[in-house]
Amino acid sequence: MKRKIYLETTPLNEAIEKWLRRLETEKILNPFSSENIQVRDSLGRITAEPVIAKLSSPFYHSSAMDGYAVRYTETFGASETSPIKLKIGEQTVYVDTGDPIPDSFNAVIMIEDVNLVRTQSTEHRIQTDEYIEIIEPVTPWQHVRAIGEDIVATELILPENHKIRPVDIGAMLAGGHVEVKVRKRPKIVIIPTGTEIVEPGVVLKKGDIIEYNSRVLGGLVSEWGAETLRFRIVRDNFDEIKKAILEAHGTGDMVVVNAGASAGSEDFTTGVIEDIGEVILHGVNIKPGKPVILGLVGGKPVLGIPGYPVSAYITFNVFARPVIYKWQGRDIEEPEKLTAILSRQVASPLGQEEFLRVKIGKVGDKFIATPVSRGAGVLMSLVRADGFVRIPEMSEGIGAGTEVGVELLRTKNEIENTIVCIGSHDNTLDLLSNFLKKRYPKLSLSSAHVGSMGGLIALKRGEAHIAGTHLLDEETGEYNIPFIKSLLPDRKIVLVNLVYREQGLLVLKGNPKNVKGFKDLAREDVFFINRQSGAGTRLLTDKHLKEHGINTKDVQGYEREEYTHMGVASAVLTGLADTGLAILASARALGLDFIPVAKERYDIAIPMEFYNTGMIQNLLSIVREDNEFRETVVNLGGYDITDMGKVMYMKR
Amino acid sequence: MKRKIYLETTPLNEAIEKWLRRLETEKILNPFSSENIQVRDSLGRITAEPVIAKLSSPFYHSSAMDGYAVRYTETFGASETSPIKLKIGEQTVYVDTGDPIPDSFNAVIMIEDVNLVRTQSTEHRIQTDEYIEIIEPVTPWQHVRAIGEDIVATELILPENHKIRPVDIGAMLAGGHVEVKVRKRPKIVIIPTGTEIVEPGVVLKKGDIIEYNSRVLGGLVSEWGAETLRFRIVRDNFDEIKKAILEAHGTGDMVVVNAGASAGSEDFTTGVIEDIGEVILHGVNIKPGKPVILGLVGGKPVLGIPGYPVSAYITFNVFARPVIYKWQGRDIEEPEKLTAILSRQVASPLGQEEFLRVKIGKVGDKFIATPVSRGAGVLMSLVRADGFVRIPEMSEGIGAGTEVGVELLRTKNEIENTIVCIGSHDNTLDLLSNFLKKRYPKLSLSSAHVGSMGGLIALKRGEAHIAGTHLLDEETGEYNIPFIKSLLPDRKIVLVNLVYREQGLLVLKGNPKNVKGFKDLAREDVFFINRQSGAGTRLLTDKHLKEHGINTKDVQGYEREEYTHMGVASAVLTGLADTGLAILASARALGLDFIPVAKERYDIAIPMEFYNTGMIQNLLSIVREDNEFRETVVNLGGYDITDMGKVMYMKR
Repeated sequence: MKRKIYLETTPLNEAIEKWLRRLETEKILNPFSSENIQVRDSLGRITAEPVIAKLSSPFYHSSAMDGYAVRYTETFGASETSPIKLKIGEQTVYVDTGDPIPDSFNAVIMIEDVNLVRTQSTEHRIQTDEYIEIIEPVTPWQHVRAIGEDIVATELILPENHKIRPVDIGAMLAGGHVEVKVRKRPKIVIIPTGTEIVEPGVVLKKGDIIEYNSRVLGGLVSEWGAETLRFRIVRDNFDEIKKAILEAHGTGDMVVVNAGASAGSEDFTTGVIEDIGEVILHGVNIKPGKPVILGLVGGKPVLGIPGYPVSAYITFNVFARPVIYKWQGRDIEEPEKLTAILSRQVASPLGQEEFLRVKIGKVGDKFIATPVSRGAGVLMSLVRADGFVRIPEMSEGIGAGTEVGVELLRTKNEIENTIVCIGSHDNTLDLLSNFLKKRYPKLSLSSAHVGSMGGLIALKRGEAHIAGTHLLDEETGEYNIPFIKSLLPDRKIVLVNLVYREQGLLVLKGNPKNVKGFKDLAREDVFFINRQSGAGTRLLTDKHLKEHGINTKDVQGYEREEYTHMGVASAVLTGLADTGLAILASARALGLDFIPVAKERYDIAIPMEFYNTGMIQNLLSIVREDNEFRETVVNLGGYDITDMGKVMYMKR
Repeated sequence: MKRKIYLETTPLNEAIEKWLRRLETEKILNPFSSENIQVRDSLGRITAEPVIAKLSSPFYHSSAMDGYAVRYTETFGASETSPIKLKIGEQTVYVDTGDPIPDSFNAVIMIEDVNLVRTQSTEHRIQTDEYIEIIEPVTPWQHVRAIGEDIVATELILPENHKIRPVDIGAMLAGGHVEVKVRKRPKIVIIPTGTEIVEPGVVLKKGDIIEYNSRVLGGLVSEWGAETLRFRIVRDNFDEIKKAILEAHGTGDMVVVNAGASAGSEDFTTGVIEDIGEVILHGVNIKPGKPVILGLVGGKPVLGIPGYPVSAYITFNVFARPVIYKWQGRDIEEPEKLTAILSRQVASPLGQEEFLRVKIGKVGDKFIATPVSRGAGVLMSLVRADGFVRIPEMSEGIGAGTEVGVELLRTKNEIENTIVCIGSHDNTLDLLSNFLKKRYPKLSLSSAHVGSMGGLIALKRGEAHIAGTHLLDEETGEYNIPFIKSLLPDRKIVLVNLVYREQGLLVLKGNPKNVKGFKDLAREDVFFINRQSGAGTRLLTDKHLKEHGINTKDVQGYEREEYTHMGVASAVLTGLADTGLAILASARALGLDFIPVAKERYDIAIPMEFYNTGMIQNLLSIVREDNEFRETVVNLGGYDITDMGKVMYMKR
């Protein structure tokens, strides 16, 4: 009964074409039928037929001004020396803006341009006849909004397949429409599967995985104009999955099963689709996202979407989105694109098209793309990414400095308002990022953590606006300045202090291995976790090891590297290591004990050409003047803000 | 009681600054407080505080592969010649992808890389011990997703003031959040006022104006992330408007009164706001949109928005939007901009900043901006516009060919997929526009009607992709070709027939003035409506007048010009004129009688460089092959499609 289909390896374009062509052949790609809805509720919906004006707007000649309607022929000859009088009620009538022009009248004189004249009648003692007096002739149809000035009955207001905007609602109402025929919204049923999957909010036990993919995919469905029906969580069981798909199939236009799309012992999706329908394709040559299933059951698309969140996001975009758009009579808009320079070399497996996530910053006049984490399981790589670089199937990678096309996930404007910070990590940078967004919602701070040395090199290469650095020169005991002088000899750099901070050895609460200082790192039962070379903290480690006369070969785990303080703290907390050197804030964050080792200076290096930009000055105003920010830093613990914001050095 | 405030004339930037500064001083611009909502329902909402991970994801070490968990130290030395056996259940355990790595294990071997070995136990006859055999050592933590690989507890997932996207929902759920604090949505109450204003759908009488502005403004409010409460229609009456504002003030954060913002006899809004609060500003130097009122009542903004739809749209964008954004902790994103070449001269009043609406087309590698109707009452100018050009207060206009900055209302992509058609108007072009959107949703056809000659000149200037033309050469009796040869001597042009069509004199049903042909245009009681010079129909008129020996001076209304067939038909229908020359389709559309005069050829002229583009070929495929389109044209009446799509001439 359970037939096992092994993964194929179809190239992406071939897979998309095969999929869409098949759906087209089966007439499953046709635009959906229509439904009548109120025009006033139609924002964002798609017209299912052209909207033709039923009425003209205005539908009568109306006055464009407050004034008097006249017959223009009766004004001929008027001048200052021989004004013409027109009798109110007979030769002229008062009209407000928007009032209909009475029949037989054909122009309007603005109220400012007439004199009102009252004449005592001789025949009837009490009656007062009124006239207006004018001193200029008028042109035909002056100040008259003619019928159809805005909309002429029978004209096309909106074409078919048009996404309705606020102004379109106004035009349809003005054109006499109260209802409009729009495309029915496609209904997409998303079935989360997995015996280990649990609803968010339940008490977790080891092995549980919080279900969130259906909410990400559901959000995308909303953004694409369709509706999501989220199914209950279904266990990894052939019959239960089969039952779920059949039930979903009855209510939705497309069924999405997440996950069980791979070929593992608990991956039943392929088998079920084979059983009740047809698998059109299983497996596509992309990274991440390979184990996708495209199927058909009873004339409706059924997709098996992989479980890793980035794989799910990418395959759903690639295979579900075009179908959902076609059903609404829409074509997918090309993503906004940008040409950027790749900041570092990326190797990529031959034979797979990779969707590389990158952060982008505009540094000077160049856009710089820096790859973020590439794991299929790292959803934060999508949260942080500004766009995708697609590395072609037949490429083994891209060299640093290469121009690449980036499909944007954020607007160019947002990217241009992002401060790119590359260098050492400190927890106050996360705080600063948040305060920047709070005080200047337009601005963002994007940090990449590559160590202090990496930050200065990024400045040198023109890949960052600012760099966080805490490099201690062993010989002089001076921070940062010697390194700036030697690494950036020809650049004007301003060095601004952020904080002084405590570095120390992190250990589990209660210090079970009784680590007292650097000398204990030579013990055989103490496993250390190191920082990457080029990190200020690595230099500090090496300095202390040297002072204690310890050979790095004698330190268990010296070769195992983390890239951030929090990475070190996490390694200690989870037992990957017994101890590591990091800042106090990271110990506090994860509830670890802290053995102080040194107080060090953490500065921000800023090239002069960026120092005076509004963006950087806004950032510095928070560092220098924002008391709430400064207090929050102090409350983190282990920080001394005596020199916060002070210029420590300026190289001209 | 009723104090009349006259319009001031504050420049736009000054007005915006005065308005926002005043609101800031009164602390009315602060971001709103927060509310807790379900993360799964938070798409598009704005975070009111940073979202910090409560949990790591994964929160336990888990397997990244289907395979066997091992202790890496126990694999040292394994090779093909000396494989190592590990006992299942003791030295190794089977794990599926996502399963927790049991304590004391620290690496995973993929299932493909092990041999399963069964050994018959000697002690117990039946029991089967199982081993895996490996031929390679593993690296520490190989194929293990470590705790926090995606998210580390305490790290910043989202900053404050962040608009929540689908991936953000996933990250918050993964980080242990079920609820999120988001900004409360601002509530904007919109009060439509005016004794002449009626609800859409009622039976109309002369003088009625359909209320649609509140729906346009309400749509904008939705797009800006806030909520609209639409008030009932209120009559032009001081006390009723006062009562309405006070009622609205109790429920909303901002009150918008539309209209009554001017200084006419029925404009009460200023007086009411003065009575119950304060008018901060009345009148701003923009066109359209001058008579706007910015007021404060009991600590809440109250806006008087002008009644003309374009004025309402612009002033609401300029003055309400920044407030609604600030309340949500957001800054307005800069509109996408583009540099384009203005296709024709525009004069603009000195002392007013004009928001000129333009259509844009990418013709060759230039973007061409062509002004559309400038009336404040022409909502269709916004429906049709691709963007705004702002003409500064101190400018008297912009010359043709000048580079201008355009703030886009459509994306650059949409604009690049727009076929620009300038020239003569024919109803089949509206049809073609609709069919193009129906068959190729990505493409649009934008038509500007400037007459046949104007179209050829637009081609010459590189401002259009195609031009509709029906120019009859009196001498040769030939259509279009002589004009192309003389106007575009050095261009390669393809001339494709669209239709043959009937031109004739339009008259009211029953022909009350008994017009029988061109000779009747010389009658004193017959008022004619003409087409603009350069129109093919104007040439046809002149040819027939000449044949009848009629002097144009003897034609009543010869100097009054319309720009389209529908314009002529509308003028006849509404009594602006007794007759005019136009195509049969326009008579049918408005139920007019038609006196045939001539059958003429209507072609599309296409420069060779555009002829072979995909965009134009798609358009021509409809003209040439789409039977539904062709039938619909025939059903319009008065069209002969014998040569539809045929190349009539090709100049190389």
